[in-house]
Amino acid sequence: MNIAANDPSLKTWVEIPENSDFSIQNLPFGIIKVNGGEPRAASRIGDFAIDLKALFVLGYLTNLPFRMEDFDTDTLNIMMKKGKEGTRKLRDRLSKLFQEGQDDLKNKEHHVNQVLIPIDGVQMLMPVQIGDYTDFYSSRDHATNVGTMFRDPANALLPNWLWIPVGYHGRASSVILSGQDIYRPKGQTKPGEDENPVVGASKLLDFELEMGFITYDGKPLGDTISTEEAEDYIFGMVLFNDWSARDIQKWEYIPLGPFLAKNFASSISPWIVTLDALEPFKIEGPEQEPEVLDYLKYSGKKRYDINLEVLIQPEGKEETSVSKSNFKFMYWNMVQQLAHHTVNGCNIRGGDLMGSGTISGPTPDSYGSMLELAWKGTKPVQLNDGSERKFIADNDTVIMRGHSSKEGVRVGFGEVSTKVLPTK
Amino acid sequence: MNIAANDPSLKTWVEIPENSDFSIQNLPFGIIKVNGGEPRAASRIGDFAIDLKALFVLGYLTNLPFRMEDFDTDTLNIMMKKGKEGTRKLRDRLSKLFQEGQDDLKNKEHHVNQVLIPIDGVQMLMPVQIGDYTDFYSSRDHATNVGTMFRDPANALLPNWLWIPVGYHGRASSVILSGQDIYRPKGQTKPGEDENPVVGASKLLDFELEMGFITYDGKPLGDTISTEEAEDYIFGMVLFNDWSARDIQKWEYIPLGPFLAKNFASSISPWIVTLDALEPFKIEGPEQEPEVLDYLKYSGKKRYDINLEVLIQPEGKEETSVSKSNFKFMYWNMVQQLAHHTVNGCNIRGGDLMGSGTISGPTPDSYGSMLELAWKGTKPVQLNDGSERKFIADNDTVIMRGHSSKEGVRVGFGEVSTKVLPTK
Repeated sequence: MNIAANDPSLKTWVEIPENSDFSIQNLPFGIIKVNGGEPRAASRIGDFAIDLKALFVLGYLTNLPFRMEDFDTDTLNIMMKKGKEGTRKLRDRLSKLFQEGQDDLKNKEHHVNQVLIPIDGVQMLMPVQIGDYTDFYSSRDHATNVGTMFRDPANALLPNWLWIPVGYHGRASSVILSGQDIYRPKGQTKPGEDENPVVGASKLLDFELEMGFITYDGKPLGDTISTEEAEDYIFGMVLFNDWSARDIQKWEYIPLGPFLAKNFASSISPWIVTLDALEPFKIEGPEQEPEVLDYLKYSGKKRYDINLEVLIQPEGKEETSVSKSNFKFMYWNMVQQLAHHTVNGCNIRGGDLMGSGTISGPTPDSYGSMLELAWKGTKPVQLNDGSERKFIADNDTVIMRGHSSKEGVRVGFGEVSTKVLPTK
Repeated sequence: MNIAANDPSLKTWVEIPENSDFSIQNLPFGIIKVNGGEPRAASRIGDFAIDLKALFVLGYLTNLPFRMEDFDTDTLNIMMKKGKEGTRKLRDRLSKLFQEGQDDLKNKEHHVNQVLIPIDGVQMLMPVQIGDYTDFYSSRDHATNVGTMFRDPANALLPNWLWIPVGYHGRASSVILSGQDIYRPKGQTKPGEDENPVVGASKLLDFELEMGFITYDGKPLGDTISTEEAEDYIFGMVLFNDWSARDIQKWEYIPLGPFLAKNFASSISPWIVTLDALEPFKIEGPEQEPEVLDYLKYSGKKRYDINLEVLIQPEGKEETSVSKSNFKFMYWNMVQQLAHHTVNGCNIRGGDLMGSGTISGPTPDSYGSMLELAWKGTKPVQLNDGSERKFIADNDTVIMRGHSSKEGVRVGFGEVSTKVLPTK
């Protein structure tokens, strides 16, 4: 696919700091609030938010399928009703306005001052109203690690895993934005085989390094979305920390799956990077053996090379990088996940969130959870301040970052950062 | 609790057919559409919908905490923002307006004609915008039957079942209203132990007889709702058919729970019967042994005596009653479910739907699914037209009805009725 806004030779007249995730090839979407004003739709370039309502009012978004109400809002859901064609045109327009050599906007300083808002003065809000949140379980290394620890190393993968992009429903109400603190959850746990369960603060609080994708409106109930159609229904991606309480999970999850172990909070990064902007970072594979069923077959590159990192920052201390993973380690890709999700006629709506599942790579330094990094508590992770962690401690901040990079172009997600407060 | 509108001696000046679910002691809430007009909030009495917007405009809802926008809408979520105190006052007012001896409205025929709309000319819409849908698994007989069939009859209940009101997240987007047809879902199933999975139409399509409750706005993330507070957060109840594809479920559900086996459709009845209206039908028990943990303890009557019935109607044939159950067969009650759901700080929102789980009683004629009624296909259910069913056939309509009755007062739910079309 050839998308003009992705041209790696494009430069911008906006000053971009070195290693910024927000090059002119990115142009993600989010919701901002400035100085206690009304929320509005925005994009970002370098260290500036781009106020889309201001751009519209000043006449820079003419001849596009948008009205002012699409940007004068606290959710991108409205703008996303225009589908991939609409949001692609919008990103193309932004790309043109901010290109080096395009002076329409650049030369009007009073306009530039209304449109480009220094990011330090910007409050980020939830970018979409999430209808349903689904979580998949699509990293083979993660599933193998969990199977090895809790079941049988010789048969670590369950029989359905190589046939089904296994998924389950999570909770939409407790998806929160980067920067919002969470409280350590309470719940039922079973201390030992012969002991009765107790209720109290989780002792095994964990992060899960994931990415999430956000959908456009789908088809009516009863219809399916093929792997070929799937990309047209995916707006973009975010970093996603699917918080998990391992001790609560262990006691509750048979037979109907994780519930309170997960639904106390899941954190997303604020800027939705469009699938269009990620197009240049697609790669082949992986091989899927046994051969998947017809409705899960796909053609072309559907994996994405996105570098991911997890850091832990104890209160008042420096951060320690504890994992370096990559979105390319997924066995099942997003178009397979969406085709599977709708094969039964399940309907999706604009703003639905689909999590990848924990993204673990093949080596121990690329595992996507403390459960795996500290291998069930047997190999504590050393932090730079001299302390160690088997799981996440009170007042720790967990930070996830992600970016793609190729031919001198960097397209990234910023970060999702969440501090854990003691149980309320 | 003494709620004036529940007085069993109350009569109404509106003509009520014998055995109507919609006595003056009911006064449920829903969303109606009449003659292609705009949707609006409504109540019901006998065979009439009560147009709440019309009542408001005509000045009958003064001195209540509502504005016209609360009724001039396609969802009850707005009105429900006023909480239990608000909706209770509204129901009390309706009760007064329609009581025998109260002639304010009765004597103004032109007002009555605007307010009372014959139900035959009314189209029912989804009563609430559902944020999240959670399904519990709270009938001991159902859990025991399933455990007996699929696991070990001697240890049919899983170890956590008597400690935890087990629940999991379902899909909100595919909750549909009574009267909307569904398509038989497709999906992956595994025909035999040594065979590869295949994809195709589900062969084991089943209903689940459930009831659902609808919540008011809850507390912020991190807070919990106690069993003592829980009723203040429950608006009312509906009949609920949680459609299930048993063959898809069997192959997909380990380890993260049911997904595509459930999320193709779940049907609700259109009128939300308030918890207030159900207050007179509360009963004691059941005994819970082992003693539950502190956060699940409760005082007072929290079970409800609600007669339930399931009927199957093959196309063009008469209906056959296949199950008679009762909501009182639940082991875990709604206040325990809500306390459990929030013990970890999970937030609930106005319009969330919580399903009871399949409601099976102790005898084979009270089982709440075909899986149990036909005992895994070994005891086909005989229908009045001479055919038999192990599961649900194409073009069958499944109907669920429910009502409470005491001291000559009947408060009911009408029905949830859904026809199954062949795979699309």
